[in-house]
Amino acid sequence: MPAMPPKPAGNLALLTDFYELTMMQGYFLNRYDPDTVFEMFFRKAPFGGGFTMFAGLQPLLEAVADLAFTSEDRAYLEAQGVFHPEFLDYLSTLRFTGDIYAMEEGSIVFPGEPLLRVHAPLIQAQLLESLVLNILNFQTLVATKAARIWLASGEGTVLEFGLRRAQGVDGALAASRAAFIGGAAATSNTLAGRLFDIPVRGTMAHSWIMAFDNELEAFRKYAEVYPDGCILLIDTYDTLRSGLENAVLVGRALKASGHKHFGVRLDSGDLEYLSKQVRQRLDAEGLQEALIAASNELDEEIIQQLLAQGAPINTWGVGTHLVTAKGDPALTGVYKLAARKVDGRFQPAMKVSNNPEKISDPGIKQVHRFYNGSGSPIADLLTLEEERVEAGHPHRFYHPRYPYQFMDVSGVRRVEPLLKAVMRGGRIATGFPPLLALQERARANLRCLDATYRRILNPHLYKVSLSEALKDLKFRLIAEYESEGAKP
Amino acid sequence: MPAMPPKPAGNLALLTDFYELTMMQGYFLNRYDPDTVFEMFFRKAPFGGGFTMFAGLQPLLEAVADLAFTSEDRAYLEAQGVFHPEFLDYLSTLRFTGDIYAMEEGSIVFPGEPLLRVHAPLIQAQLLESLVLNILNFQTLVATKAARIWLASGEGTVLEFGLRRAQGVDGALAASRAAFIGGAAATSNTLAGRLFDIPVRGTMAHSWIMAFDNELEAFRKYAEVYPDGCILLIDTYDTLRSGLENAVLVGRALKASGHKHFGVRLDSGDLEYLSKQVRQRLDAEGLQEALIAASNELDEEIIQQLLAQGAPINTWGVGTHLVTAKGDPALTGVYKLAARKVDGRFQPAMKVSNNPEKISDPGIKQVHRFYNGSGSPIADLLTLEEERVEAGHPHRFYHPRYPYQFMDVSGVRRVEPLLKAVMRGGRIATGFPPLLALQERARANLRCLDATYRRILNPHLYKVSLSEALKDLKFRLIAEYESEGAKP
Repeated sequence: MPAMPPKPAGNLALLTDFYELTMMQGYFLNRYDPDTVFEMFFRKAPFGGGFTMFAGLQPLLEAVADLAFTSEDRAYLEAQGVFHPEFLDYLSTLRFTGDIYAMEEGSIVFPGEPLLRVHAPLIQAQLLESLVLNILNFQTLVATKAARIWLASGEGTVLEFGLRRAQGVDGALAASRAAFIGGAAATSNTLAGRLFDIPVRGTMAHSWIMAFDNELEAFRKYAEVYPDGCILLIDTYDTLRSGLENAVLVGRALKASGHKHFGVRLDSGDLEYLSKQVRQRLDAEGLQEALIAASNELDEEIIQQLLAQGAPINTWGVGTHLVTAKGDPALTGVYKLAARKVDGRFQPAMKVSNNPEKISDPGIKQVHRFYNGSGSPIADLLTLEEERVEAGHPHRFYHPRYPYQFMDVSGVRRVEPLLKAVMRGGRIATGFPPLLALQERARANLRCLDATYRRILNPHLYKVSLSEALKDLKFRLIAEYESEGAKP
Repeated sequence: MPAMPPKPAGNLALLTDFYELTMMQGYFLNRYDPDTVFEMFFRKAPFGGGFTMFAGLQPLLEAVADLAFTSEDRAYLEAQGVFHPEFLDYLSTLRFTGDIYAMEEGSIVFPGEPLLRVHAPLIQAQLLESLVLNILNFQTLVATKAARIWLASGEGTVLEFGLRRAQGVDGALAASRAAFIGGAAATSNTLAGRLFDIPVRGTMAHSWIMAFDNELEAFRKYAEVYPDGCILLIDTYDTLRSGLENAVLVGRALKASGHKHFGVRLDSGDLEYLSKQVRQRLDAEGLQEALIAASNELDEEIIQQLLAQGAPINTWGVGTHLVTAKGDPALTGVYKLAARKVDGRFQPAMKVSNNPEKISDPGIKQVHRFYNGSGSPIADLLTLEEERVEAGHPHRFYHPRYPYQFMDVSGVRRVEPLLKAVMRGGRIATGFPPLLALQERARANLRCLDATYRRILNPHLYKVSLSEALKDLKFRLIAEYESEGAKP
């Protein structure tokens, strides 16, 4: 029982809720496998925020392209005693052969809009559900948290230090990847650095200081080995009386011999008070260029407050609250049937719940983002896939739940359809830019977004509306369902 | 960039904070590698609870036994430009050769006591830090959450359904393993089932119902394939008017033809009201033995309230809040230097912080659990490793932070040392019982624990105290440190 799955590491066919397999067999034995379209979306932006950042597409597509049931998987399923041999034979040859449309990683996304659309025979589409949700929910959540922290830091230097508090091995690796896309400058997780080509950072723990006879000896030994970029952790004993004074001795000596990038790290105590005291003392000792790094249970609200109070902190080490997504530890993304083929034609599907918040939008949909003259998004419009939307003329945007509410949008410079083909016939049909390019894209998208949507607390609500055709379809289907009463 | 690390899947040498590697090189280049003892402990029970359940030891030990830097790891580290060739050569041959002492998985543990002790040369012990914390923090957290949910359910049937909301691939797999130890009866995660030999469960999603022309057809098609253990999801349209009535038709037909284990699942709405209505209707239709399963954002507090109100629910599907550990998404376990060898003798180490809560207990320690005549734990005593503790005579227990507070404990039937050797010389020195045995052990431990410690809200505080010798050592070291003032 290893800490992570056995080889082949890339094959996650069994990483699926068991009910997907029982449903797949149900469809199979009923000889029922129509073409379908499923859409993944979420209902609420995490952290009470005004935006969400999409991430996780590349790992998802790579896992989908690799999906295959091994002979060990088959033997395991057989032993469960509920699967027929002909279904197991079928699984052994099953590969995903469908098409996938998706947003780009690093995109800003909003509740209610499809982030990903899967076009495939029902059985294949069903198989993908758990994998889609597991990978996209978590990476999107962490990228969003990282973006919030990066914004709160004034686009500063945020280091992701979450490995020891992350939710398992891949909880750590996936978090490092997503945090980098969302804005973290580097990670402490060396394996994530190697796998994803993310810069790695880190200097010393309290154990370094405790392993020597005293603090000054520990600092000196460290500076001998790392004279450049020497960041000393000064809170093992007494921050101001001991740590800072010893650091000043070492920092001055390093400076005198021409070394660069000296600094100190605070990992406990009142970070505002301590950082101001430390800055004053370092400056008085001629160490104006020395950096002050801070860590210890930081999140975006604490960072925003520290900066508002003028704390002279240059670098933010954020661990637990970034990788476990403090405040909202799960993005509640769902994967719903949007359409299925009946007699050669796609027929829209929808879930008509007693709760209007849970009624899904029917049909195969596209998301159009409307931009103003300065390149800022104004609002998003959900349309049926076949609708053509152009910037030129005014558009009527309908409220997704109140059919009598609408707004007319004009002054539109540009309209962009956001869902693009990324897999065709089971093959990846998109390039994967390096993560740094995704981070740059994410930052550019955040900067274009009006500041009212970027606020950490109580942001403005970005509107996601329905086109007239989609609105008409949705409320017609609800009316038909209601007039039938409880279905027989 | 795969969703999980490349082969060899078992080798996690680089899954370490970068500062462990910079410190390791620092020790290496200083030719400083004394024998050390590090201890892992946590400071606060999660979820405001009265107990914590230890889990994750087997995956940790297997990862430690496999640790080795590959040539790819070496090339990656070389490219970082901070590591000397002789250190990289050293890493290439490095294996863990130390000893590890630990609690058993499924043990009840408390804040402040060592859960694991690593005896190794400093450089090796440092390498283990991130891995120890990543694996033990998360699995202990989830096992604890599962135990709370199992207790709240009245030792009922709890199914772990968290895959789609888990924090990444291993966030899901590790959570399934830990949740099973803590008390979940089964998982929905098929890969976890295969890897860890956990029962898998699951029936149908809303998409099954939406994929057919109407709900009754969908239910009938399902019952044809799965006539036994047929659990129908009844909330896709209207729970009472449609779902329940269609389920009754199918349930009666199944019963008439002699099939067993029929039931329904509620996944939305007011679970107390709906479950009572459903129970009444099922009973009135002669389906008294039909099960009612419930899911939808459940946690231990909601389950406790539903049962207190008499909701007739038989099975609990718990997802998000179990695998993301709602309320406390990270266990704040730490790994601290406890002793290092100086001139051939172990010298106790401690972190003397400005904050008394953060002062660690010095020296190499053992945890002794004291039991009363009915086999219930009374209190735990931390001692120095070499102290001998016997049940026979009264013991004085000292408060860990207030040296003037103590209690005398008598009526002790049995004393058990909890830390046992599990790795010797880098080789695993313990057997690994099947997970089901760990679950049984965990349940037995929970049942022995006095009910006041098992309360979900506001539990009684279980006492972890210091022996006189440990108390004397701790406060002597603090006094020595304080009288020296800020170390020069």
